[in-house]
Amino acid sequence: MNPTLTKIGTQMSNLTGVRAIMKDIIETLRAGAGQEFINLSAGNPLILPEVEQLWRDCTAELLASSEYGEVVCRYGSSQGYAPFIEAVVNDFNQRYGLSLTAQNVLITPGSQTLYFYAANAFGGNTESGELKKVVLPLSPDYTGYGGVALSPESLVAYKPTLDVDSAAHRFKYRPDFSQLSIDETTGCVIFSRPCNPTGNVLTAEEVNKIAALAAPHDIPVFVDSAYAPPFPALNFTEMTPIFGGNIIHSMSLSKAGLPGERIGIAIGDVQVIQALECFQTNMCIHPSRYGQAIASRAITSGKLANISETVIRSFYQNKFTVLESTLDATMPKDLPWFLHRGEGAIFAWLWLKDLPMTDWEFYQLLKKVGVIVVPGSSFFPGLREDWQHKHECIRISLTGSDEEITTAMQRLAKVAEDVYQHTVVGV
Amino acid sequence: MNPTLTKIGTQMSNLTGVRAIMKDIIETLRAGAGQEFINLSAGNPLILPEVEQLWRDCTAELLASSEYGEVVCRYGSSQGYAPFIEAVVNDFNQRYGLSLTAQNVLITPGSQTLYFYAANAFGGNTESGELKKVVLPLSPDYTGYGGVALSPESLVAYKPTLDVDSAAHRFKYRPDFSQLSIDETTGCVIFSRPCNPTGNVLTAEEVNKIAALAAPHDIPVFVDSAYAPPFPALNFTEMTPIFGGNIIHSMSLSKAGLPGERIGIAIGDVQVIQALECFQTNMCIHPSRYGQAIASRAITSGKLANISETVIRSFYQNKFTVLESTLDATMPKDLPWFLHRGEGAIFAWLWLKDLPMTDWEFYQLLKKVGVIVVPGSSFFPGLREDWQHKHECIRISLTGSDEEITTAMQRLAKVAEDVYQHTVVGV
Repeated sequence: MNPTLTKIGTQMSNLTGVRAIMKDIIETLRAGAGQEFINLSAGNPLILPEVEQLWRDCTAELLASSEYGEVVCRYGSSQGYAPFIEAVVNDFNQRYGLSLTAQNVLITPGSQTLYFYAANAFGGNTESGELKKVVLPLSPDYTGYGGVALSPESLVAYKPTLDVDSAAHRFKYRPDFSQLSIDETTGCVIFSRPCNPTGNVLTAEEVNKIAALAAPHDIPVFVDSAYAPPFPALNFTEMTPIFGGNIIHSMSLSKAGLPGERIGIAIGDVQVIQALECFQTNMCIHPSRYGQAIASRAITSGKLANISETVIRSFYQNKFTVLESTLDATMPKDLPWFLHRGEGAIFAWLWLKDLPMTDWEFYQLLKKVGVIVVPGSSFFPGLREDWQHKHECIRISLTGSDEEITTAMQRLAKVAEDVYQHTVVGV
Repeated sequence: MNPTLTKIGTQMSNLTGVRAIMKDIIETLRAGAGQEFINLSAGNPLILPEVEQLWRDCTAELLASSEYGEVVCRYGSSQGYAPFIEAVVNDFNQRYGLSLTAQNVLITPGSQTLYFYAANAFGGNTESGELKKVVLPLSPDYTGYGGVALSPESLVAYKPTLDVDSAAHRFKYRPDFSQLSIDETTGCVIFSRPCNPTGNVLTAEEVNKIAALAAPHDIPVFVDSAYAPPFPALNFTEMTPIFGGNIIHSMSLSKAGLPGERIGIAIGDVQVIQALECFQTNMCIHPSRYGQAIASRAITSGKLANISETVIRSFYQNKFTVLESTLDATMPKDLPWFLHRGEGAIFAWLWLKDLPMTDWEFYQLLKKVGVIVVPGSSFFPGLREDWQHKHECIRISLTGSDEEITTAMQRLAKVAEDVYQHTVVGV
């Protein structure tokens, strides 16, 4: 069959960003059967024994209770499972001194779905034909934002400024407030904090400045907190979530060990939450409930926040240390390489300034030495302007073993040295 | 906050059909605290002990296996959990003599989401601005179809013909092939079989005739089989699912005891399945996996099909018998009331011909005697033409106890008698 697709059907058939590259990676792994690859492309978190045990314990509790039938054998509320919402409200009120009620919370089938609702309820064409933009204030950012807008022209990202420490071979992106435009043509704002792919954490000042630009126009600002405290607490630098006003604090339990169960959480203004809930009612009735039921136990007992801080964070922070110390030890000092400050998330982001080839070509060379990463150009959804930097970065997942990360970075250093040797460059 | 909604945001903020009425019902129940209501409005299946036990047993097995961590602690494939897809493929190939492969199957977060993908990937505007219609060939039909089309103007339903047995006070809807138009302006076709709200089961001949009209234009036909065999097997008349060609056999595990877990299954043409899978990847990554993991066990063991036939079907079929025998015994013989043939699903559909008030007013009168049903006019999404019949029906859920159903129908008969008494009517 060759059915005709609508405009939306065609748009949603495009696999954007990392997903397009995943095809190449899967084919590489298949074709190279027998060949040993160190695969540092994945965003799929590793199974940490303590984390799995937590979810097993909560499941055993659920199974031993009379609650089980009500959870899985009955339809539920579109807003989410009430005891789970209550657990979130109580935990956040106590932890951050807030006065949230259940009306401030919406549970979604994963946080990607939440951004799908947001990007289309607030971004795209209005009844009067005006185009409302979905603004990504700091590019690069999460590649999935490129797939959720039904009107791709609504997605607009802004080039950052670069805060470079040449001597240390480190750098950090900053929002360029001289360029960033948030006005009556903006429908909503989205950014991740900590950031996938860069590990950047916007400062509280930067977040508040963005929110303040959006506030006069009643524009919701979705802060994608998939890696933030209190769970999974994958911040390696001090940071405090920011609540209130037009900020929708948007969470995921995927990096807290429940990616399979697809749980997103939005916390914010009642009007915004209600608009998103209606969208959800019409689209999918409600998110699945088993994951919510076990998570309500793990949050109420305090165990989820505890394991996040003591197990999940230190596991990935240690991986980043292994990665950066290997690069420091093996990358030639005279090459213009810059590792993004590792402030959080489960990736490292490496900028190879003046790389004498594209990131895609560099990715191919790494495959030849048995190392798979993701070319960085996939992570600039909505940034249409030409910018050499887009083709000079790679994302390296922290989901390998210490030994794999060490070996991979040693090989990468060798490839980088070879690649640069024919060109004259300066730090 | 008062954020501006886009056209899509406004459309998706409309609670359509039953959902709009649910508000009134919830308020009625709240306001009537203390008053006893027999609530026959719900589409929420009851918890049947054997069914709950099946899911508990499968969960205990999953928890005892090493598979658990892979299921909940890892992201999965967008297509669905591989062992679950394999279970469906094997079961259907064996049961119906098919030759399906995994490529013919997509798992979605509930079947409503599947219709959301279908209604927008195939219905709505094309790149060239042509409007592709979502055709509902037999109205009334599932109210949720009214909420999934982002372009509401794309939804077009057709008036049925009525097959009336006056003496028996029974009737049945039939598709009106003299009116039904499926052509190059059609994007896809959707109907439920057995039908929510009417309990109608289209004959194999009718289904094949609809599919044949759509086939020359490569139009996919989604047969919503949420109540069909082999699970939940909520057909009270003989029926065999139909596969192949442009038919997408679309299932749900919600009436097989897993509404909380949101599992939809699409089986059909590879090209159609792939288009829907891409939509899913971009929108929500993948459906949640715990429900899929326990369902793969229940399908492979044969227990799900067995419990569906021996427990679920007979439970609701008995409810229908209670309902119809009470109406036969208590409804005045000289009133023009007609119960739709109870061929399946978990509802009864009552047509009160020449009702001297609207279905909404009749619903209000029933509330006064402590009985809650759903006014039928909610179940005609996409049928724009004026038709008196739309305001002469009610949907009665079979989810009450035998005693509740009996009492409710006795009260309904009395109200109907009072209502008609001032008007001269004939059967």
